[in-house]
Amino acid sequence: MPNEILALAGGVGGAKLAWGLAQVLPPEQFLVVVNTGDDDEFHGLHVSPDLDTVMYTLAGIVNPATGWGLADDTFTVLRSLEKYGVPTWFNLGDKDLATHLRRSELMKHGASLSQATEELCAALGVKHRVAPMSDDPVRTSLLTDQGVLKFQEYFVKHRCEPRVTDITYEGADWSSPSPAFADALETARAIVFCPSNPFLSLQPILELLGVRKRIAAFSGPKIAVSPIVGGEAIKGPAAKLFRELGEEPSALAVAKRLKGLCTTFVLDTVDRALAPQVEALGMRAVVADTIMTGPEDKVRLAKLVVDLATR
Amino acid sequence: MPNEILALAGGVGGAKLAWGLAQVLPPEQFLVVVNTGDDDEFHGLHVSPDLDTVMYTLAGIVNPATGWGLADDTFTVLRSLEKYGVPTWFNLGDKDLATHLRRSELMKHGASLSQATEELCAALGVKHRVAPMSDDPVRTSLLTDQGVLKFQEYFVKHRCEPRVTDITYEGADWSSPSPAFADALETARAIVFCPSNPFLSLQPILELLGVRKRIAAFSGPKIAVSPIVGGEAIKGPAAKLFRELGEEPSALAVAKRLKGLCTTFVLDTVDRALAPQVEALGMRAVVADTIMTGPEDKVRLAKLVVDLATR
Repeated sequence: MPNEILALAGGVGGAKLAWGLAQVLPPEQFLVVVNTGDDDEFHGLHVSPDLDTVMYTLAGIVNPATGWGLADDTFTVLRSLEKYGVPTWFNLGDKDLATHLRRSELMKHGASLSQATEELCAALGVKHRVAPMSDDPVRTSLLTDQGVLKFQEYFVKHRCEPRVTDITYEGADWSSPSPAFADALETARAIVFCPSNPFLSLQPILELLGVRKRIAAFSGPKIAVSPIVGGEAIKGPAAKLFRELGEEPSALAVAKRLKGLCTTFVLDTVDRALAPQVEALGMRAVVADTIMTGPEDKVRLAKLVVDLATR
Repeated sequence: MPNEILALAGGVGGAKLAWGLAQVLPPEQFLVVVNTGDDDEFHGLHVSPDLDTVMYTLAGIVNPATGWGLADDTFTVLRSLEKYGVPTWFNLGDKDLATHLRRSELMKHGASLSQATEELCAALGVKHRVAPMSDDPVRTSLLTDQGVLKFQEYFVKHRCEPRVTDITYEGADWSSPSPAFADALETARAIVFCPSNPFLSLQPILELLGVRKRIAAFSGPKIAVSPIVGGEAIKGPAAKLFRELGEEPSALAVAKRLKGLCTTFVLDTVDRALAPQVEALGMRAVVADTIMTGPEDKVRLAKLVVDLATR
């Protein structure tokens, strides 16, 4: 759809800005493309954690205490699965399981992840479009001091504790962007990098076949919001990963990773001093209050982003 | 395993006698082979209702109020699946779902239904052997005045209300008995037809490739317990089916269907008068109290059956 804003997102942080954008943009002017490098199979079911976080957030049913999962969920199935001796460290609520069951059933019968996502979103009343980054399987895995860990092993089972020395995005090299994503890369009026983990949420998207090149060549505004504020990640292991991979975590370090891909970089007021160095990377630096606590914060940040995308 | 007793069973009635037999026989002397003509796929999962009823009964965790399903189950997942607009007339509890998830996962990764059943039983502490009648898919469907219905559509969705004119066992012609079943047909010391529905539980087993012939040729005791008592089924639509298919429901009608396959037919004391006609079919008639209400009833009937099998 021409003139849409294309947002690239991971989990909780991305979902928050996506929610804000959905409040200020009509459905046909917004597409959120979500990382699927975190996807995995649990108990035979296809689980897409970031897609679900975005979908549940836009549907207004996300667990507000965690930012992911469903509000007031129970864990009866998981407790029963324990009796069958299978690993149950990945927390799947009963209500949440219905999503994985339905998605897996649709895919078992031939639906792509895009089609399954569209059907799930429609059923949950999500009006804005949500698409996976790819319909092909891309799997993020991390080389750590405890060996190679699949994303969810690292993130959930080991609580991001192992020291990471390298990250791979298995399958990305030969995986195409999903149809909606590929279209939007042609027709969007702007691209937004949500404040998501640079290594674990945005990088898998950039690693897809042709995506980095196409974003570099994209002629409209490309706006990023820093997920690192005051040298720390709002949520998740981004800052720890920067350190382990040999760089001081900062909004500037995030901007460096987006050099040539981003025209406008939004950094938090506390990082105001970094603005000149960000501008030296060839992008405009915009200083704003980026912390999204309540709905007003999300809408305010979304309005700023839309404003930057429209200029 | 030589000298075992091989019981053929469907759901609730068969499970009751199987439970009794498991109380009086050591694990290596008992195998229960279970109808899988009722199996179906729900929400992408392989559901084996009769196998589960037998397994849960032997594990002592079956819902005592219904004779199937799990005690104290909840239905959170099913209610959530409703939101995705999928049919949810087949009642799947949350605890029960763990079984279907685990079975489906095992089969997705290459396990046969026999292997999956063995693993589930082991996890639930079932010491006696439970096997599906076949690892190949056999599906019972019914021609009715409301069209062709798959078994669960007839049994659960339409509550056995449609008038049945014919029954088919799709796939049975080219489906082999499961490995354990095939072995037992060679090595068992006796075969027991549990008091299960003749059309819907025992017939699918008899329709399997070579099974009817092999049971006919089996030289040991072959003992049946009538599921029809006083002209009515203890549970389920057996009597209604007899009528719709043109025969008066009775223990004698059951015995007729087993002519040439059964050496000893156990009928209830209330059906004592039918004994001579049963014997005229070429089988010994044994009159006993066959109603299984409490555990003592099940054990008493099981002891009788073992006694008949051992003579």
